[in-house]
Amino acid sequence: MDTSANSAFEQLLGASAQTVETELRRLLSDHPRAGEVTRPLHLMQAARHGVLNGGKRLRPFLVLESASLFDAPPSAALRVAAALECVHCYSLVHDDLPAMDDDDLRRGQPTVHKAFDEATAILAGDGLLTLAFDILADDDTALPAATRLALISGLSRASGFGGMVGGQALDLAAEKSMPNEAGIITLQAMKTGALIRYACEAGAILGGGSDEDRERLHGFGAAIGLAFQLADDVLDLTADATTMGKATGKDAAAGKATLAGLHGIEWAQAQLRGLVAQANELLEPYGERAAVLMAAAHFVADRRS
Amino acid sequence: MDTSANSAFEQLLGASAQTVETELRRLLSDHPRAGEVTRPLHLMQAARHGVLNGGKRLRPFLVLESASLFDAPPSAALRVAAALECVHCYSLVHDDLPAMDDDDLRRGQPTVHKAFDEATAILAGDGLLTLAFDILADDDTALPAATRLALISGLSRASGFGGMVGGQALDLAAEKSMPNEAGIITLQAMKTGALIRYACEAGAILGGGSDEDRERLHGFGAAIGLAFQLADDVLDLTADATTMGKATGKDAAAGKATLAGLHGIEWAQAQLRGLVAQANELLEPYGERAAVLMAAAHFVADRRS
Repeated sequence: MDTSANSAFEQLLGASAQTVETELRRLLSDHPRAGEVTRPLHLMQAARHGVLNGGKRLRPFLVLESASLFDAPPSAALRVAAALECVHCYSLVHDDLPAMDDDDLRRGQPTVHKAFDEATAILAGDGLLTLAFDILADDDTALPAATRLALISGLSRASGFGGMVGGQALDLAAEKSMPNEAGIITLQAMKTGALIRYACEAGAILGGGSDEDRERLHGFGAAIGLAFQLADDVLDLTADATTMGKATGKDAAAGKATLAGLHGIEWAQAQLRGLVAQANELLEPYGERAAVLMAAAHFVADRRS
Repeated sequence: MDTSANSAFEQLLGASAQTVETELRRLLSDHPRAGEVTRPLHLMQAARHGVLNGGKRLRPFLVLESASLFDAPPSAALRVAAALECVHCYSLVHDDLPAMDDDDLRRGQPTVHKAFDEATAILAGDGLLTLAFDILADDDTALPAATRLALISGLSRASGFGGMVGGQALDLAAEKSMPNEAGIITLQAMKTGALIRYACEAGAILGGGSDEDRERLHGFGAAIGLAFQLADDVLDLTADATTMGKATGKDAAAGKATLAGLHGIEWAQAQLRGLVAQANELLEPYGERAAVLMAAAHFVADRRS
């Protein structure tokens, strides 16, 4: 894909990120919702620090774009997008903790436990995860009750023991005992893949798509999830800290096994091209309407940071 | 209340705890559910260590008993009870962490981060919280979709920023700057009160009770939540470590403000009697059917450990 196409895509992504951030800011206000006693200011500041930090909002973008493919109500899709981003951001806040990846910086800013303290970071993460389910259960999304339940069920399985959290546990274990290729694939399918698959599938759920639609979007999410991780591995092997805004070469230095590390950068780049082709093929039935999602697949595979 | 009545109640509570634990063991098995990739063994062992540890299961008991008051399906009530206990246990796992209360023992056993490690304890807690919402969203509970959503919404608000997690943040702040009486009341209403109120109200939600029923059970939960905390404060001032199975006098030693510490043990005991009377009065409309819940109020106020 040429540079100008990717730059047009980045404009779309940027505009979407602004919409998502406005919604996140509203949901993370100090003002308690019905049934809440009060929202401690310090805790909410920490939560906002962990969320409103200039992220690309790729997962919310995938929700919004896949939802539009099925003519889902945009305001309801925005809610789901924000809930998913709360889960993604809580996982970053907890992953950055000293007992986990021990990162001081994220996107060039102090991580939550550095800007506040460890206990507050743990609690801010817990609160963000809890809020995600509150947002999805909320009846002012105007979605049918069965749809909201399917979204909650999908998010919990994508992010819990058998999804993201489980993947993070496998990642910690991989530091002690290098997994084989199958082990790396499982780890990544859980740690980063599950939430990206859910982001894409959520649109089909939101819009009342058929089982076939759900499977197709799930497959699309699986392909770009793999591409996302491969591109990350390649970046880790090649990029410098200035481009990434975080420490790099870290996986390699920590002896972490990655597929790109195992098979080399050329193999990874061939894989990336294959995954983009596969992702696009899955969306062919939707024709021109899926053009933005197809561009997203290119963007994920080509990203430079 | 005389000792024999309390001992009869403890038998009921013990039998209920066994039922709840069987359900929790099933929900925390290594076997992945539909939509999950795999459940890492080490992580599930840590989660089970944090949950299947001989707790009294008071909150699940309150769910089950309040549900039976409204003729809710027992199997659905058991699910909700188990989900609530997952939230309670995750909060203990995270509270015990070095960055929080830094406890090595809970009920005489090593805490999760001591038996495993800090990172695993953080992830086990995250997974338990996530699982709670999975359990409530699950459609094999045979509850109407609107009921399941109301249960999810209630649990997320009771346990999130404006409930339990927020209360824990206020508790951390209270170590640095002693709160006044109103501050202590708010802190406790959030940290321990919110989940107990929800446990009682959940029965009315489960059984399709009226708004008045929900308010009455919410009020009952508020009264016994306050009693629970006051009894805990009194125990902390008087009990020894052998009875409690954990360090005691800890709040006082840490300079933590409690209402019992502020007003004295006699005042606290008079308050406890008043709260039990208030709790019982709220349940009078249900007559004999509420006898076990009334006994629970006595038990909470009188407990010796």
